[in-house]
Amino acid sequence: MDMWLKEGQISDAAMTYKIKETLVRKQTEYQDLAILDTYAFGRMLVLDGIVQTTIKDEFVYHEMISHIPLFTHPNPKKVLVVGGGDGGAIREILKHPSIEKAVLCEIDGSVIEECKKYLPEISSELNNPRCEIFVGDGIKYVHEHKNEFDVIIVDSTDPFGAAEGLFGGSFYKEIYECLTEDGIFIAQTETPFYLPEVVKKVFNDAKAVFPVTKLFMAGIPTYPGGYWSFTVGSKKYDPETVDLSNKIDFETKYYTKKLHKACFTLPKYIENLIK
Amino acid sequence: MDMWLKEGQISDAAMTYKIKETLVRKQTEYQDLAILDTYAFGRMLVLDGIVQTTIKDEFVYHEMISHIPLFTHPNPKKVLVVGGGDGGAIREILKHPSIEKAVLCEIDGSVIEECKKYLPEISSELNNPRCEIFVGDGIKYVHEHKNEFDVIIVDSTDPFGAAEGLFGGSFYKEIYECLTEDGIFIAQTETPFYLPEVVKKVFNDAKAVFPVTKLFMAGIPTYPGGYWSFTVGSKKYDPETVDLSNKIDFETKYYTKKLHKACFTLPKYIENLIK
Repeated sequence: MDMWLKEGQISDAAMTYKIKETLVRKQTEYQDLAILDTYAFGRMLVLDGIVQTTIKDEFVYHEMISHIPLFTHPNPKKVLVVGGGDGGAIREILKHPSIEKAVLCEIDGSVIEECKKYLPEISSELNNPRCEIFVGDGIKYVHEHKNEFDVIIVDSTDPFGAAEGLFGGSFYKEIYECLTEDGIFIAQTETPFYLPEVVKKVFNDAKAVFPVTKLFMAGIPTYPGGYWSFTVGSKKYDPETVDLSNKIDFETKYYTKKLHKACFTLPKYIENLIK
Repeated sequence: MDMWLKEGQISDAAMTYKIKETLVRKQTEYQDLAILDTYAFGRMLVLDGIVQTTIKDEFVYHEMISHIPLFTHPNPKKVLVVGGGDGGAIREILKHPSIEKAVLCEIDGSVIEECKKYLPEISSELNNPRCEIFVGDGIKYVHEHKNEFDVIIVDSTDPFGAAEGLFGGSFYKEIYECLTEDGIFIAQTETPFYLPEVVKKVFNDAKAVFPVTKLFMAGIPTYPGGYWSFTVGSKKYDPETVDLSNKIDFETKYYTKKLHKACFTLPKYIENLIK
């Protein structure tokens, strides 16, 4: 049987992946969840038909969403991940020895459960004693915790449906309150090529809340366009100019200290978008 | 009719594009040539089933393959484009007022002819008096011209089939001879994610010939992986450290002077590939 996944994120153009095996497919309380084994990217998590993460290219996303804010903050101890049920961000966060507690607040417990089972390379640190898992609404969690986290990572699905409330001004104000006085926020913020208006709105919403707001790019093959944006909002430290010389080194596949700075230099059309 | 192009470049994963209209489809002396009008990317040139350039994202490729070498050279007067029959590189090259002659050496005259007809936004400068068109073999042309060009741009299809001879050491030696004493060479050199061995080989082949060899990346949505490599070989000037402060400014959509430097800072896995 020649079985292919056709991804439905962008209209009139689609990535397709040849499937070896469907490892799990179920309707959870929140979404259509599948973990597929593919020929080109190995096992992948697919939510509502959209590829979230794959064994072969997850390192780009998880390294960049974690190490940029954690190396920008001088001494991050408490980190909150909103979403991120696959555990990839948690795995990267716990590489930083200063971290005392990393809270994962994922609305869909089934994502955690199935990723623990089928994506052990990504979910490997979800049982780490420094990781605390909370299954519930990220918006509610952030609202109920004030002045608590040094870094907040919004590792969500796209801003349509379930995750819509995780993008935009009112949530960013709550995040600001949830951060400590020198805290840093980061979110994945979509493709500037296909969804320029989303990138622009989200950036401006963050900019209205945070004294320092920067956007950077990373090359992620399984995300539409292959060139993905992340937005950083910071109360104090500038991720682009921070001194990284005294930071520890550990093995990475994408992140480097030099790239930490360079990734904020944007192509003209993206620069114009957030001007 | 719901008609889609499925691109065959990468096995087991494929980009697909919904087609509005097939403007031209023919077997030329060298390849299967099509110009399709698509919903997501507008008109696109497809050779042997592989998307070469599209109205919507061509600016990234054509700006980066042209302006990086042309702004690195202090006074480029004569440029050779090997391949590039769509005319996009010629259009960008002729934005540099120092250019006296830009030679396009394209093996397949049908590409030039059909792009003039159906992709006028890209081919617009092919009739410019500073552009000289030569329909013929690039390898032969380069062999027959010594010490002549300040910049040589290899704007070819992929290193399989017709364009295979345009990648690799023996051709790069000929290019070296064809360049003036401070000349610069650039080529599109594929995707480090899907084809790491190709990127590695091509880079090392160039490095064996040129005193300065550098690789940079750009985000191109319609190329596999969306994050594409270019290799620069230079006899004298380093594109990453060259002083750009006195260079003229003109309107671009991707290239900026700051990005000219930053694009050479590579993700770790690409850095490792060419170490």
